[in-house]
Amino acid sequence: MPTFTVDQLRRAGLSILRNVGVAEEDAECVVDHLVRSNLVGHDSHGMVVLPIYIEWIREGKINIQTKPEIIHETTTTAIVDGKWQFGQVSAKMAMNLAIEKAEEVNLGAVGILRCSHIGRLGAYSEMAVERDMIGVMMCNTGPADVVPFGGRESRLSTNPISVAVPTGKMKPFNMDFATSVVAFGKLRLLKNQGKPIPEGWVLNKYGEPTTNPADAFDGGMLTPFGGHKGYAFALLIDILGGALTGAGCTSSVEYQGGNGTFILVINPKAFGSKPDFEEKVDELFANIKETPPLAGFEEVLIPGEVESKIEETRRREGIPIDEVSWKQITRTAEELGLDIDEILNR
Amino acid sequence: MPTFTVDQLRRAGLSILRNVGVAEEDAECVVDHLVRSNLVGHDSHGMVVLPIYIEWIREGKINIQTKPEIIHETTTTAIVDGKWQFGQVSAKMAMNLAIEKAEEVNLGAVGILRCSHIGRLGAYSEMAVERDMIGVMMCNTGPADVVPFGGRESRLSTNPISVAVPTGKMKPFNMDFATSVVAFGKLRLLKNQGKPIPEGWVLNKYGEPTTNPADAFDGGMLTPFGGHKGYAFALLIDILGGALTGAGCTSSVEYQGGNGTFILVINPKAFGSKPDFEEKVDELFANIKETPPLAGFEEVLIPGEVESKIEETRRREGIPIDEVSWKQITRTAEELGLDIDEILNR
Repeated sequence: MPTFTVDQLRRAGLSILRNVGVAEEDAECVVDHLVRSNLVGHDSHGMVVLPIYIEWIREGKINIQTKPEIIHETTTTAIVDGKWQFGQVSAKMAMNLAIEKAEEVNLGAVGILRCSHIGRLGAYSEMAVERDMIGVMMCNTGPADVVPFGGRESRLSTNPISVAVPTGKMKPFNMDFATSVVAFGKLRLLKNQGKPIPEGWVLNKYGEPTTNPADAFDGGMLTPFGGHKGYAFALLIDILGGALTGAGCTSSVEYQGGNGTFILVINPKAFGSKPDFEEKVDELFANIKETPPLAGFEEVLIPGEVESKIEETRRREGIPIDEVSWKQITRTAEELGLDIDEILNR
Repeated sequence: MPTFTVDQLRRAGLSILRNVGVAEEDAECVVDHLVRSNLVGHDSHGMVVLPIYIEWIREGKINIQTKPEIIHETTTTAIVDGKWQFGQVSAKMAMNLAIEKAEEVNLGAVGILRCSHIGRLGAYSEMAVERDMIGVMMCNTGPADVVPFGGRESRLSTNPISVAVPTGKMKPFNMDFATSVVAFGKLRLLKNQGKPIPEGWVLNKYGEPTTNPADAFDGGMLTPFGGHKGYAFALLIDILGGALTGAGCTSSVEYQGGNGTFILVINPKAFGSKPDFEEKVDELFANIKETPPLAGFEEVLIPGEVESKIEETRRREGIPIDEVSWKQITRTAEELGLDIDEILNR
């Protein structure tokens, strides 16, 4: 598998986006997001999506000629119209707005409508942590490919959530996952390996439980994680990301694709002193880390810890991109008349 | 099983609390909470806990001679010191405060420390819905009886969460559950029925997976719902309920028992018009309700729907209280020199 440095991937991504006319600031926002997704191991939100984004620009699904705009605002809240600019550009702007509000009045909540694919949610909740705040990101998405608990037709999507929390000495907490029991990326891997999946993860196109991961890619449907409890979170995310923001719930007529996004930022200083809160969180995590592991586990992990470890490794050893994805990126560059090897070695 | 009307249970509860010197307003707050828990089917938070509360008053764990107090406040946030008054009194006061803030500035977040048992979380998120707002309640609790994902020693507790959302014509959404895969109440039932439980729900006192529900009551431990995802929510609730509020995380030295509670209220009006939001939520729920059910399910349910149905039945047919619980309540009344039959027939 070819491996790259952060700088190499960044140069490759920026060359491609500049070439199709993306403004410098927006190109940097998007490429930094993609490269960081690869860096922390969320490859499905990494450079692999760049060729798809180029397609979307051509098809008019992403509008690079516009700027997201605040269309409604109060001291604590706002609605941002993403205007189908890159989702990363809208989400970064909206998260910064929520952070500003939380700096001023301790809480900030911002919704985004007409918002393209925002990528890895953890990237935005991390922005709040960098400012010593708690960041919450959630969004709905399309198409509907997740069944409600007890149902056998898709009405929801993988509706992901991320919450990040600042710490003192410990690594920040960052939970960041889909509310389906499993993501399509993992199913694709298991399908390619010819492995069965536990019953309950996927329904086939007839709405019947299956243990064959291939069924997921043949009109199949995912189930929410954790039974009725995970389903409740999935539904809540459609309510906040879809109904509250005005983006529309995934299965509604008004939903036009992309990520109806809801952001919340909480300033811990409003509840006491910053060192006090961060010390308490450190103490909690130290206590959790000391839990003796269950048979089959090496250690107990804090959400976000896996990503931190992958980041350390990849900064040291380079970022691997699988052959298929790299070929797609190279082809996209070539179609634009770019010499990817020259860019990498620049 | 004896059944009672709301009024009968209310009279019985009020007589008992008045008799031990609880102020009228506080007694009403607590008894209304307990009776409503029974009414909607959450019997474990209903009248059954009244004898325990009387014990706690005697032991000084509940301090009926005090009032919860705001010890820190900003426009959007507050910390309430519950002073070990009944948790229901503190939580109601704190939720009202969060609602007031959300009325004024669209978002309100309130933490409670030194907070006794608050009971059914859905009761407070419902208060926000009555004011057309979204209510979020979460709390940690003790003792630690839940393992972190991949661990074999308890470091967390059942850390419940409730989120309630207003609707137009549909019944309000109210998700309200523990972040452990199962509650002790359900395990007790399965134990009494001699039924096995699926592997993964409970670890025995040696930290080994078990299918015997009795192990849960012999030093056993619960697991978080939904694997690492539910564990992340459990941990987040300890962070917000324990660390952010100052109540202390469940396994920390400073944790003194009770419920470290975090409340958030979101005013949907800040994001658009009230009818517009409620119509969108109605449409979502109608769409979800139309999902054809999976084999073994009668219908797809919206969180809170089961409780609404139980409430209708129990209002019509009376509230059943199991013999054992009713005997405990009767005994408590007798010890206080009260004639429970006279009170019921008053």
